[in-house]
Formats: sequence, structure tokens, C-alpha cells
Amino acid sequence: MRTKPPPSLLSLTIDSAVLNLSDISDLSSIPDHILLDLFLRILRAGKLTEKVLRLFIATGKDEVISLVEALNIRHVLTPVLPTTVINDNEVDIVIGALHADLTTFMNEWRPIFSRFHLIIVKDPDLKEELQIPEGFRADVYSKADIERVVGSSSSIRFSGYSCRYFGFLISRKKYVVCIDDDCVPAKDNAGYLVDAVAQHVSNLQTPATPFFFNTLYDPFRKGADFVRGYPFSLREGVNCAVSCGLWLNMADLDAPTQALKARQKNVRYVDAVLTVPARALLPMSGINVAFNREAIGPAIGPALRLTGEGKLRWETVEDIWCGMCVKVICDHLGLGVKTGLPYVWRTERGDAVQSLKKEWEGVKLMEDVVPFFQSLKLPQSATTAEVCMVEIAKAVKEQLGKAHPVFSQAAETMVEWVKLWKTVASG
Amino acid sequence: MRTKPPPSLLSLTIDSAVLNLSDISDLSSIPDHILLDLFLRILRAGKLTEKVLRLFIATGKDEVISLVEALNIRHVLTPVLPTTVINDNEVDIVIGALHADLTTFMNEWRPIFSRFHLIIVKDPDLKEELQIPEGFRADVYSKADIERVVGSSSSIRFSGYSCRYFGFLISRKKYVVCIDDDCVPAKDNAGYLVDAVAQHVSNLQTPATPFFFNTLYDPFRKGADFVRGYPFSLREGVNCAVSCGLWLNMADLDAPTQALKARQKNVRYVDAVLTVPARALLPMSGINVAFNREAIGPAIGPALRLTGEGKLRWETVEDIWCGMCVKVICDHLGLGVKTGLPYVWRTERGDAVQSLKKEWEGVKLMEDVVPFFQSLKLPQSATTAEVCMVEIAKAVKEQLGKAHPVFSQAAETMVEWVKLWKTVASG
Repeated sequence: MRTKPPPSLLSLTIDSAVLNLSDISDLSSIPDHILLDLFLRILRAGKLTEKVLRLFIATGKDEVISLVEALNIRHVLTPVLPTTVINDNEVDIVIGALHADLTTFMNEWRPIFSRFHLIIVKDPDLKEELQIPEGFRADVYSKADIERVVGSSSSIRFSGYSCRYFGFLISRKKYVVCIDDDCVPAKDNAGYLVDAVAQHVSNLQTPATPFFFNTLYDPFRKGADFVRGYPFSLREGVNCAVSCGLWLNMADLDAPTQALKARQKNVRYVDAVLTVPARALLPMSGINVAFNREAIGPAIGPALRLTGEGKLRWETVEDIWCGMCVKVICDHLGLGVKTGLPYVWRTERGDAVQSLKKEWEGVKLMEDVVPFFQSLKLPQSATTAEVCMVEIAKAVKEQLGKAHPVFSQAAETMVEWVKLWKTVASG
Repeated sequence: MRTKPPPSLLSLTIDSAVLNLSDISDLSSIPDHILLDLFLRILRAGKLTEKVLRLFIATGKDEVISLVEALNIRHVLTPVLPTTVINDNEVDIVIGALHADLTTFMNEWRPIFSRFHLIIVKDPDLKEELQIPEGFRADVYSKADIERVVGSSSSIRFSGYSCRYFGFLISRKKYVVCIDDDCVPAKDNAGYLVDAVAQHVSNLQTPATPFFFNTLYDPFRKGADFVRGYPFSLREGVNCAVSCGLWLNMADLDAPTQALKARQKNVRYVDAVLTVPARALLPMSGINVAFNREAIGPAIGPALRLTGEGKLRWETVEDIWCGMCVKVICDHLGLGVKTGLPYVWRTERGDAVQSLKKEWEGVKLMEDVVPFFQSLKLPQSATTAEVCMVEIAKAVKEQLGKAHPVFSQAAETMVEWVKLWKTVASG
């Protein structure tokens, strides 16, 4: 039984044109109605790039221009990068899938993610099949893949938000960008879509300045510089290892604050990137973060897991702990950590009041965690991220182990993570 | 010989109305042409306040509304302050007058400065009479006044940019705001005039958070908060002692950078205030700064004077040195230093290439200055700003004195400044 008529010759021609877009350099001779049809099919196939858009706009045809306006298609604002263009092969996007339907998430990110390789790690606790739209270069890893690599004897749990660490482990790229699956691209003050990946990579590729504070923020941004009084000997800066991005709409608050200020949204787009000074600690969020995997990869691993850890950010502190480790290690190794741009738009998820009824374990633990890391000194002999992690694990066991069993567990996980990292790296 | 006809009765009536504006609460019965005339005279007299503007707009007359629009008169945007309103009697505005004609400067600042007491200190090297427009509560101090207070035996030189320190010395207010005379009010991203005084006082009245970095910047700003992972025990913050503002248009660069990037203007309005973390040093600029005089007054004094110090900001480092002292003292006493908003619009002045031909003394000295302050530890016994300053002076003499004679001189000036401060405070 036939449900569809056979495709017309015109339709087949258009399909062929969509497949061979890269060979087309001029659309001016194509009749208007075919042009519109071609444009819509390209859109549907997820192949509308900057170049293709330019090609259509160059026809100058009113119908095309009107359609572009009606669909509110805008050029993606690529920040002016002070360095050379991004090499697509140096970047992995790692997505921890805590929700089965990634359709909206992926489609929203399409203009930014589609040129990069994606590593999607499915939360092992998630039962449903993942729904991922077409048009991406994505490798998907599930529970079976994790067990094959990690082995069943491992005590590291890659469930919940920690599934993303598996992606960091198996990546082979220089830079890793990781964004939570409840975030979509943000818009800047001018209404342009923010290219979060370009901004993260730019942050990582330009030097950081942790040893003296520059009051005009990142001196390597276009239009900025070092201010009077900044020592010339410190202007070369150091390599940047971590780029912490921010959030519009739903900020990354803890459950009590979120419950207290249920209606508060973050609407302030602060157009700045800055280096967090040496010896200052920050609450690194896993929601929107990037790092130089070659420089600091082993320092970004799973460790502190709360007894009743949930599937909402405010029910975890795994990323906060990880941020303490990586900041202390960066300070020790002379690497930089930046924060600020890029923003992502974070959508609402979960009920903070419900979370409040659970144990406030994360909030309480921070009272021990922060003084510990503030006073932590790593030995001179620790010259790699791996060795630093093992040293921190040792100190955690000794100094925090008695305060709460989760700390001893964290120390063990860290040691095991470093072993796993070495095995996978050499395998 | 008469050059002008005698004033008309109408004209005299309008003059009288301008003088008695505060008694007028309704303008609706005044004929249109008189209304316009009155409005223009009020403008010329510099008496257009928010209240008066409202009075005119309340008439609803098209001619008035059109005039307001044509002249681009806007309500001054008073930032929403998280604390109570500013008490005018707690604030002194200190202006170091390095140029005789303050007319433009003062008129531009009128909507912001007119409600506060001003201390104008004339650079002792300046020969011409100061020109100051009417309508301000200003006390003006000249060379003779300085000598009367300081005495002729003092080795402290209050010339050039350092004349402002005399204003700090004789102020009796809690907060001091100091803005260079080549700056005018800036506009924010929405085009509103920035109330720099309100922002500075807000920065000083709300707590600072130097012991842990908040990635969403100042948690005490409207719409902001502490992010997840910020220890609750540190959320109370500490008193803020210093508020460092920034500059649009001409940034505060050193002469080599300014000469190299002659056409570069700072156009990025970063809508943020942040606490500079403990133990991180910053290049504090004297261009646009405010401080809590009661908390830290004696720490903001004259000290490092370059051998060939000029009358252009990039030919000095007096403020940079002062910022090192005050940051180290704030860290020691558990006080905070904020940076960011408010911006001022800095106009062009001087030729950086000419300055380049002079000795690069300031730039060179910073290579010794920064490591010195980074490693400086003040004794536990130093619990006041005065004692801290004397301790720093001692260390400067011992550790830097041999490197360059200006350092020994700076140490002596600091000791003398503290003595002077005590004398004036008790006098």
C-alpha cells in the first residue's frame, strides 16, 4: 500500500541541492518559489550555516528577506577573538544526559554545537531511550559503555550529574566544554545569541592573570588592556586552565536561597571575563564550564557525593568540591582560572521547597570544606595534576575524614579516579 | 552710559520666582510663554532639580514637554540602593583642582554634586584664580590654607594630584568621594546618567566579601545573591572601606600603553561591582575613588612621589602606592575593597608620547613595589590604620630603602602623614 505519491523531479532536485550545498556559490538564477522551498528544506535539515544564509540574502529577493525576518533568523554573534580561529578538532562538547528527550536542548544549541564533536553520556540511572535529533557528530555512551571502560569493580559512581566525568575521561581533545541539559543559548544585551563555545575557548586560549588584579577585567579582550600600575613583568600572564561560565534566568543558587527567592531571576548580563586571583577560592559550577584537558584534566573528576544526592543541581556539591580541588591545583601549578562570560540561559527545573525538606547536607559540609581548602598547601614535589589530586586525597582523609564519612569516600574516589585516568590515557 | 534697558516688571517677577522656587508647588495657571521663559532661566541658574522638573512636566503643556525633549533632559537615574537613603551630611566630595577653570566640570556634575558638601583643594603650584560656578556648598582651600594647617616645616608636598590628600585630612565626614577634575558623569548602557556618588556610597554601605569569590559579583546588589557553594558562615561579609570606580572613554593606562594605543577608548560598560579577594593586590586609581574615612582614613595618604612627577595621571603612581598600602591594611584589619561601578567619563588630556620621553620611573618602580607588598605581613599588634601605616613605613625603609631614594622618602612621608592626621583629628 502506497501512502505517499512518488517524489517529483523538482523535489528530488531540491533534495540533491541540500546535500551539495557546499558546491553552490550563487542562487540568483533560481525562481523565487523554488528558492523558498530550498531554504525551508535546508532549515529542516539543520544545514543553515552563516555561509548559506549569506548566499540566500545575497539574492536580494524580498520573499527570502521577509522569511528570514519572519523566522527571526539572526547571524550568530561570534565574539571577536584575540587569537586565531578555533580548531574544531581541538574541542569536545560533553553533555551529561539526565533527561531522555534532548530534542529541544540540541536544536537550540544547533547553530553553536553542530560544528563540534559531541560526547553525550547518559545518566546510568536513566531508563528511557535518549532522543537526539539528527545533524550532529555525537557519540553516545550508556551504562554498558561506562562499565566496559571503568570495570565493574570500580567504586566510582558515574550516576546523576557525575555521568559527565565519564565524558571528560574518554575525550581525546585539548578543550572540553560542558553544559547542563537544562540550559539553552543566552542572548547578550544587544539581543544576539551568545556563542558559548567560542567564548569558552577564547578564555582558555588567552592568558590568565592570577597574580595581580586588573580593574578593567580581562586585559586580553578586544578594547581592553592592563591599567596603570600593573607590573609589566606580570603582563605576560599564565596559561588558563579553566573557564567558568554564568547563567541568566535561573541562577545557580542553593536550595534555601532558591526557595526563599522563588521569583528572583538573574537578568543582569555582565559583559566581563576576569581571572580569579591566586589563593582566592570560588564556587565552580558544573552547569556551564570548560577546561584545558591537557593541562588539568585529571583534576576535574568525581569525588564528593552526598548521601542523599539528587538529580537537581542544588541537591549536589560534586562540582563545587571539584572546583576547590582544581583551583588549589591551578594556584599550585601556576595556571589560571577565569570566570564571567559566557552566559547560558538556564530553564526552571525542580521544586526548591521540596529539596529543602531533604537533608541540608551540602550546605553544612561547605563549612568544613572551605577552611580545609583555604589552608591546604601542596608539596613542591607535586608537579602534575595527577600527583596533586593524590596529595589532596591524602590530606582529605587525614584532616576531614573524621568529620564526616562522605569525606573519606571522596578521598578514595579521587585516588581511584587518578588511576582510572592513567589507565584510559595509556590504553 | 547705559548699555542695557532697565529690566521689565515681568523679568523681575521671573527672577524672583527663580529665587523662591521652593515655595512654588503648582505652575498650571502660568501662561505658556512665561512658563518657557521661567524654565530657561531656571536652567541658566543651574537650579533645575528633579523636583522642579516634575513641577514643569506636571503642567502637561506641550511646549514644556517638547523643550525638555529637545534639550534631552532626563531624570537622573538613582541606583536602587539596598540600604537606606544616603545621608547628605555623611559625605564629602573632595576635588583636587589641577586646572583653574572648573566651570564645565562643576556644571556637568551639578545634578549629582549639588546636594553634598564639596572640599575643593587648589594645587599649590597653580597660579591662576579658580573659576567655580555658583550653586554649590563648597569650601575652597589654597596654598595658604594648606600651610596654615600643615605648617611650613612639613616635608609632605601637597602639590599636583596629591593636593586631594589635604581634602581627606580636613574632611569631618564618614565617607569621602574623590573624582579628578578631567572627568564628567558617565552614562550607563541605557543612556542614563550614572550617579557616581550614590553608587560609591552604596558600595561602602553594603558588606564586602573578601574571603570567598562570588561568581555572580556583588551579592548585595538588587537581583543578585550568593551562589550555590558559598559558605553561609561567610555570607555576612565584612565592612567595606574602599570603593574603586572605573572610567569610560579614556581608561587609566600608563604612558607607554596610552602612547601605543592612542586611539583606543574604553567603551565597555561592565555592570558589576565586586570585592577584590583578600591577599590580591590591585592598582587603585585616584581618578574615581571613595572610602570610609572613619574606618581607613589615615591609610589614604601621600607617600610615593616620583622624582620628575608631572601633572598627568600617567606621570604619577602616588595613588597606586596608596592603593597597595590600603589593600594590605584592609586585608590585615578584615575590611573589604570593592571595584567596578561607578564609571566616570574621562576626557582626553595631555600627550602620552611626550610623557614617554620622560623617565619611565613609575613603571620601573612597580617591579619592586608589587613583590614588596605581596610578601608584606603586618604584626598582630597593629590594630588601627595609623599603626599599620607606621609599620608599613618601617618595612619600606628597611626593605626598599636601598633600591631607590624615593622609597625612603615615601616612608618618611607616611610617618609624617600619620602624625599630621592625629594632630588634625585632635585639633
